[in-house]
Amino acid sequence: MNFDFPLKNLPAVMSGPRVERRRVLVGGSAYWGTIIENGEKAGWLRLDDGRVVDPSLTPHLPPVSPSKIIAVHISYSSRSMETRNKPKPTDTPTYFTKPTTALNGHGGQILKPADCKYLNYEGEYAVVIGKTCRNVTPDEAWDYIEWFTPALDMGLQDFRDTDQGSMLRVKGADTLLPIGPGLVRGVNLFDQTLRTYVNGLVVQEAHIGDETIWGPHYVIADIARHITLLPGDVILMGTPCHSRSIDPGDVVECEITALGRLAGTVTAIDTPRAAPLGVGHPPTDSAEVRRVALGFDERVPERFKQNLQSARGIPNEKAGR
Amino acid sequence: MNFDFPLKNLPAVMSGPRVERRRVLVGGSAYWGTIIENGEKAGWLRLDDGRVVDPSLTPHLPPVSPSKIIAVHISYSSRSMETRNKPKPTDTPTYFTKPTTALNGHGGQILKPADCKYLNYEGEYAVVIGKTCRNVTPDEAWDYIEWFTPALDMGLQDFRDTDQGSMLRVKGADTLLPIGPGLVRGVNLFDQTLRTYVNGLVVQEAHIGDETIWGPHYVIADIARHITLLPGDVILMGTPCHSRSIDPGDVVECEITALGRLAGTVTAIDTPRAAPLGVGHPPTDSAEVRRVALGFDERVPERFKQNLQSARGIPNEKAGR
Amino acid sequence: MNFDFPLKNLPAVMSGPRVERRRVLVGGSAYWGTIIENGEKAGWLRLDDGRVVDPSLTPHLPPVSPSKIIAVHISYSSRSMETRNKPKPTDTPTYFTKPTTALNGHGGQILKPADCKYLNYEGEYAVVIGKTCRNVTPDEAWDYIEWFTPALDMGLQDFRDTDQGSMLRVKGADTLLPIGPGLVRGVNLFDQTLRTYVNGLVVQEAHIGDETIWGPHYVIADIARHITLLPGDVILMGTPCHSRSIDPGDVVECEITALGRLAGTVTAIDTPRAAPLGVGHPPTDSAEVRRVALGFDERVPERFKQNLQSARGIPNEKAGR
Amino acid sequence: MNFDFPLKNLPAVMSGPRVERRRVLVGGSAYWGTIIENGEKAGWLRLDDGRVVDPSLTPHLPPVSPSKIIAVHISYSSRSMETRNKPKPTDTPTYFTKPTTALNGHGGQILKPADCKYLNYEGEYAVVIGKTCRNVTPDEAWDYIEWFTPALDMGLQDFRDTDQGSMLRVKGADTLLPIGPGLVRGVNLFDQTLRTYVNGLVVQEAHIGDETIWGPHYVIADIARHITLLPGDVILMGTPCHSRSIDPGDVVECEITALGRLAGTVTAIDTPRAAPLGVGHPPTDSAEVRRVALGFDERVPERFKQNLQSARGIPNEKAGR
Repeated sequence: MNFDFPLKNLPAVMSGPRVERRRVLVGGSAYWGTIIENGEKAGWLRLDDGRVVDPSLTPHLPPVSPSKIIAVHISYSSRSMETRNKPKPTDTPTYFTKPTTALNGHGGQILKPADCKYLNYEGEYAVVIGKTCRNVTPDEAWDYIEWFTPALDMGLQDFRDTDQGSMLRVKGADTLLPIGPGLVRGVNLFDQTLRTYVNGLVVQEAHIGDETIWGPHYVIADIARHITLLPGDVILMGTPCHSRSIDPGDVVECEITALGRLAGTVTAIDTPRAAPLGVGHPPTDSAEVRRVALGFDERVPERFKQNLQSARGIPNEKAGR
Repeated sequence: MNFDFPLKNLPAVMSGPRVERRRVLVGGSAYWGTIIENGEKAGWLRLDDGRVVDPSLTPHLPPVSPSKIIAVHISYSSRSMETRNKPKPTDTPTYFTKPTTALNGHGGQILKPADCKYLNYEGEYAVVIGKTCRNVTPDEAWDYIEWFTPALDMGLQDFRDTDQGSMLRVKGADTLLPIGPGLVRGVNLFDQTLRTYVNGLVVQEAHIGDETIWGPHYVIADIARHITLLPGDVILMGTPCHSRSIDPGDVVECEITALGRLAGTVTAIDTPRAAPLGVGHPPTDSAEVRRVALGFDERVPERFKQNLQSARGIPNEKAGR
Repeated sequence: MNFDFPLKNLPAVMSGPRVERRRVLVGGSAYWGTIIENGEKAGWLRLDDGRVVDPSLTPHLPPVSPSKIIAVHISYSSRSMETRNKPKPTDTPTYFTKPTTALNGHGGQILKPADCKYLNYEGEYAVVIGKTCRNVTPDEAWDYIEWFTPALDMGLQDFRDTDQGSMLRVKGADTLLPIGPGLVRGVNLFDQTLRTYVNGLVVQEAHIGDETIWGPHYVIADIARHITLLPGDVILMGTPCHSRSIDPGDVVECEITALGRLAGTVTAIDTPRAAPLGVGHPPTDSAEVRRVALGFDERVPERFKQNLQSARGIPNEKAGR
Repeated sequence: MNFDFPLKNLPAVMSGPRVERRRVLVGGSAYWGTIIENGEKAGWLRLDDGRVVDPSLTPHLPPVSPSKIIAVHISYSSRSMETRNKPKPTDTPTYFTKPTTALNGHGGQILKPADCKYLNYEGEYAVVIGKTCRNVTPDEAWDYIEWFTPALDMGLQDFRDTDQGSMLRVKGADTLLPIGPGLVRGVNLFDQTLRTYVNGLVVQEAHIGDETIWGPHYVIADIARHITLLPGDVILMGTPCHSRSIDPGDVVECEITALGRLAGTVTAIDTPRAAPLGVGHPPTDSAEVRRVALGFDERVPERFKQNLQSARGIPNEKAGR
């Protein structure tokens, strides 16, 4: 990872006691609370008003209200290697955006329209901006990161062929950004391991410190050259190799050690009403769509491929399709 | 233009009387007001509290506070023809997004960093969403449009090579979306003409009804297949031919008859502090950058090219560069 | 009711077909949907993305996100009569505010701290502002009302003695404003009847058209003399007679015919941590507190008093306390 | 001042280098910037994008976007003494709220309607909340304060008789809360002196450490017993003695040493359109109105009274009216 790595000094967001904040619905109101770290009630959520609830029984809301969400295309070495058919190794990160209407909370339904075939998971971590940030250096950028959180950057790859690379329809549909379960600070991000699970089996895995090409401080300094980041803005930091398509009924999870484990369930939804009228670019099943949706299995660890087949009940001979 | 054109029934947003709302700064507060349409004070702005001010002497704020801004790549036939080197005529619109931090008001400074060369204008109209919109047909979509307004979808083409088509850096930098001067309803959009001016001379012109490939109702129905549009969201409807690069000191305006005339001034700004540290994709002057920044002059009306040269004080022989 | 009543022309918000919008949590995301009015699925909620859910099984969020909430002290004749010990009949309405953090949704928990004794219900209807409104007449004000909705203006009367009438602590605590279940338009508000229930028995009742002293158009015109109302702002329109105190475990509902039936459950919560340190005005049980919390039973219909006793399992001889 | 005073440890918001952030309009866009503390350009504003502007020539916006604004009625000993005719000395603070539409920036117009007579100034400091705060102790409350800023809590005392103490119309009208010029941290609030000026002459003065009855930490702990404070929420901390009424054309300023000097100009505005229709409580000139608007001169230092007369060009014999 470039720029100041290993870190000479642990930035504030990685220092000091772990704090995890969640936003949940109790009755008809959203409340913030803090996860109890120690003692008999460890793991329970203490709402700010003093009530203590079992988070596993409490509906979660997205713990962020950003003005914008910016995602790194590729910032893991395994993902970079997997998608190697790019003309040449990129030497700077590239980005796209997701609208805030894509936000989803822990335990959410991830919608797959009936006319779509390829809904890919991408387990990631996200950083949340703490104060207005513009025109900073990578070293300074650490001061503007307030929280880390797991995220799932889901993509409807059926729309890969349209929007000329902006991925508005691929990545921007409602529900395609589960995030949470909570916001965490006080842990060393680079010591953590990210794992994505489908129906309980590991299908992606990366040690963040080992695999990261660009750290969040670099990414923030890059974006903030021209764009003001506001408090609450979310940066999605990319996924490691083996993003694949899943189907209604599949449960997908992104776990980052010390940050938490975020779950969502793929849920079928009707074809949009405008589609049969011929409005808009239809879902397609082109070579390019399949290239990204199905991935490049040669360089992916065998156990991820086998886990995905087992998880989805696919006989082995169809492995890798 | 496809889908129900010419319109059988004028939608409410196009049905009279004309109303124009502006948001201005008086003293230290932002106020909404309505342009006086008739009588002695016609053209003045009546603030909602009763004060009447001369809008030409009053700083304007952007008249929108969207949760997201979505832009059509191409929806004018002249622009489609100019950029004809696309593989084949697109048969559905494609989109990208601009972050809300790019918003700028009438009379604003449009920032061009010292290390960039190509800042292109694109005169457009925008529509503003009036109520939560998802899963609608084109016919229904008209009910969700509350306002029309001129806009300038400025682009730093130096970053054309990066972001793999999302145009985050090309179109997303702070100040690159002047919008206003106000929000207008009660006029027939398809009877209007759009003109972009540089230093007072016309450099783009299109009759909206004649040139539009996809109307805003179609675009909204297309996006809302998968993405919820919220009240206040902004859709930029594309530009006609002859988007070109301008320099600090140039004044660019987008006038749409019956909607208003929006102005901005290109203003120099320092190279970002992270740039000399080697952070991020640098501005480039590649063939692809020049292709888009400089355009394709063969199909552009001669008077636009000559006006642009005159406006910028460029001797004729350098026309079209 | 003063000003233009009976209405000469039904305002748009009261005119044809009924529309009800709700905001619910499905999985981890909030969605808007519309209640199905007719046919086999009447009463179910169609989310904007096409899913149809049973609203009785779906957590509700507050259907409003106001910048401010303004409440009328008294605008029903029965309430005015009950609290007759005011020096003289008020001839203009008076107002207070509730912070937006007091908002609660249908089915919510209404929190009663352990050190408080008197949590009073007040069934009301609310109006939601549709567009920026300042300096209007009562006739014009109708155009700025977009929705009606039931509400419960709960009050911790233990703090009646403090805040010199602002009622910040009485009415402003978290959860003290259940609102919903949805937003409704297209019904004639003045033909409706409001009923408050405790544990299923009617404890307040008023025909809105018969009992209203000031209509919402008058109230909006009054407030907007000096204060800009923004889209989404909420005005609470006061309660009829027989606001009384209830306890943890009690279920309180406000039903307004044609608008819906809003429920909440009083829930115990610990005494705030700062209270035993001696911070702030403590809850008190003064004569003034009891006067408002317990009310004036002489002028209240007998059946409301008896219903409240039955609902709360109180023997008859303690009636009226 | 009660609770931990003098402070044993300086809280973070009072420690370390002074930082001042302002929000200004340049062209048509709002930008955040930081005041340059040292060197040749000391006192100028460096926008986050690198531009340096003269703040005295740049329109200011309110530097806050709160969800709510809560004000202490009285927290200065001199004000408490002046208004001594309250039944007995209050032993806990009391509060009211101002709607966010009352916000005004440095250099703003403070509107006085033609039918009103008494617009009183109250110079104050405000604190801005940095993170979600509920159920805290006074010691903990310091961690939730992010900024200090001068404020003017203006009041239209003509409406003193209405709203039963909520002061919605007295304190809540548009423009009645100038705040700024910027947000400051890194200074010891209790070492500062507050001064209010009318037309350049001092009319209120208090040393904050000497005069404060309740510190902001106490006030936050008090409110947060029942009400969640959100990031950006504003608490107005009360005014010292000698709040008096001023007229259109008068310039009022609140200076707090080390925080800044905030200015506004009283500006005449027409009587609201609904007023001649008989809508709402009219402005009155009752004994109670005059009691508060004109104040109690006996206990006010002579020089403040004389300065106010001089500032407003009132012959001495009319002193104190």
